[in-house]
Amino acid sequence: MSIRIGILGYGNLGRGVECAVRQNDDMELKYVFTRRDPSTVSILTSGATVCSSNDISDHKDDIDVLIICGGSATDLPEMTPKYAADFNVIDSFDTHAKIPEHFERVDSAAKKSGHIAMISVGWDPGMFSLNRAYANAILPNGRDYTFWGKGVSQGHSDAIRRIDGVQDARQYTIPVEAAVEAVRSGKNPELSTREKHTRECFVVAKEGADKAKIEHEIVTMPNYFADYDTTVHFISQEELDRDHKGIPHGGMVIRSGVTGWNDETKHVIEYKLSLESNPEFTSSILIAYARAAYRMNTEGISGCKTVFDVAPAYLLKMSGEEMRAHLL
Amino acid sequence: MSIRIGILGYGNLGRGVECAVRQNDDMELKYVFTRRDPSTVSILTSGATVCSSNDISDHKDDIDVLIICGGSATDLPEMTPKYAADFNVIDSFDTHAKIPEHFERVDSAAKKSGHIAMISVGWDPGMFSLNRAYANAILPNGRDYTFWGKGVSQGHSDAIRRIDGVQDARQYTIPVEAAVEAVRSGKNPELSTREKHTRECFVVAKEGADKAKIEHEIVTMPNYFADYDTTVHFISQEELDRDHKGIPHGGMVIRSGVTGWNDETKHVIEYKLSLESNPEFTSSILIAYARAAYRMNTEGISGCKTVFDVAPAYLLKMSGEEMRAHLL
Repeated sequence: MSIRIGILGYGNLGRGVECAVRQNDDMELKYVFTRRDPSTVSILTSGATVCSSNDISDHKDDIDVLIICGGSATDLPEMTPKYAADFNVIDSFDTHAKIPEHFERVDSAAKKSGHIAMISVGWDPGMFSLNRAYANAILPNGRDYTFWGKGVSQGHSDAIRRIDGVQDARQYTIPVEAAVEAVRSGKNPELSTREKHTRECFVVAKEGADKAKIEHEIVTMPNYFADYDTTVHFISQEELDRDHKGIPHGGMVIRSGVTGWNDETKHVIEYKLSLESNPEFTSSILIAYARAAYRMNTEGISGCKTVFDVAPAYLLKMSGEEMRAHLL
Repeated sequence: MSIRIGILGYGNLGRGVECAVRQNDDMELKYVFTRRDPSTVSILTSGATVCSSNDISDHKDDIDVLIICGGSATDLPEMTPKYAADFNVIDSFDTHAKIPEHFERVDSAAKKSGHIAMISVGWDPGMFSLNRAYANAILPNGRDYTFWGKGVSQGHSDAIRRIDGVQDARQYTIPVEAAVEAVRSGKNPELSTREKHTRECFVVAKEGADKAKIEHEIVTMPNYFADYDTTVHFISQEELDRDHKGIPHGGMVIRSGVTGWNDETKHVIEYKLSLESNPEFTSSILIAYARAAYRMNTEGISGCKTVFDVAPAYLLKMSGEEMRAHLL
């Protein structure tokens, strides 16, 4: 029998989850829940039903895992504890500083209902966190570095779009190659914010807008750009649509550490992602953890879990025997 | 209270484990068991005792986890099931083809005694296996590539040393950069053995030996060298001792795969290790899994386990709360 999946929220992430379900033949998409009028939402999967999110509780016996595809700022803090009352749920909550608080709220809801709620599943937090954990376990005497990009930062693109005179914008975060190489060499450098990443902005100005003023507002914007070397390119809307419509991302987690009786031996562990679509890759991770959540819950496990709590064997469709024969 | 560690076998790996225990303040090395005369074995840790491996059962209540540092060919198939009767044990069994058989024998011994026996812990099998598993779970539609090196292959070095007229030798396995780049680009190339790795040999010939004949014997040796582009350098014993005494190794696991409704989006996941000492890095992994074995066994779990069965949280000294706050 297939694992029955529900998706709550049908934006980039929800559509990515729909595609990911299709690649896994032990799963089946049953429902897409939306806050919009269901008749206006058209999905790709024949056999799945679009429902209003108001009616979600009516379907609590029809799906095994609900993937909550909402935003971290306001959606998930409310949705994840709420829906953990009726479903095994997965979210990709990514406000790092607020994870402990989110965990507590979700954990008490999920324990009460006997479901599993996996939070902060994705690549950062998620796969990057896992790699930090494994590398820290192996090399307790060492140092972590995380680089992001080259990739599109949605938050920074939005910040540019809010500037007066800007019609559209796309911002790329780019790791500084010299910094990456210094880390890979095991030199354990101290790196300032400016030394780790640069920011490149492609901006469409409204007709008659003051480009010099826009550029100045961007490069001096506190938190977002002031601490970085930022390059601004003005281009046409056609160029932006043609050359910058993808949502690529990626990055690296590198830990460099020492072993030996006198810490005399160096090692470097690197995990690197190059992604053509940030939401589609995140969705694929969500789906693997949905499988784990379902299996762990059928074993009687409940409460809030993160990627740290999940043995890798739960993520794969293959049996332990097959894994030992083919992947070990 | 510290986790009490015993080491069986005091070669490069055993010494590495001793160093790794020192870096983890929740662990304590209690005993080193050796097949040699204990009075001839001198260890680094004050407070630990060297004992004959014949007396190992006398100490079954004195240690929490026994790290078995033996060879995969003949030692581990016998030792791991045997000692799983009295101890939680960890080994680094690395004969990939024989893992299923080893698992079965160890599993029945460990289940009978109520202990945990973790097998095939290291970096390949081990961390590379984990990365294959995670990447396969995320990108079911894709392809795995494993490259080894640049690093010393002990087996190939030994094979050269067995050739008539060879006094000493060191062999390096080197990934072919063009092949690695093709894989990283997401091209999913078909790669022959020769296209993936080259082999470089540093050989000390005995006085008066026929170097041309030695070189011919190396490059045509079936299984070991015939399928590779192999370079042979004759050097002096002094040069070998000066420039090639380390045991560096490493490599990469790369999975390239596609997502999207029509498999239109490419992603590449890469895990890379650069290690100055193969045995010291392997030892550090063994110690992290010793912590996991101890904790899982105190929770009542027993039987044979691999890295696939261990939730990452068991590997780290820090609490779940600390992990979520600092690593997630």
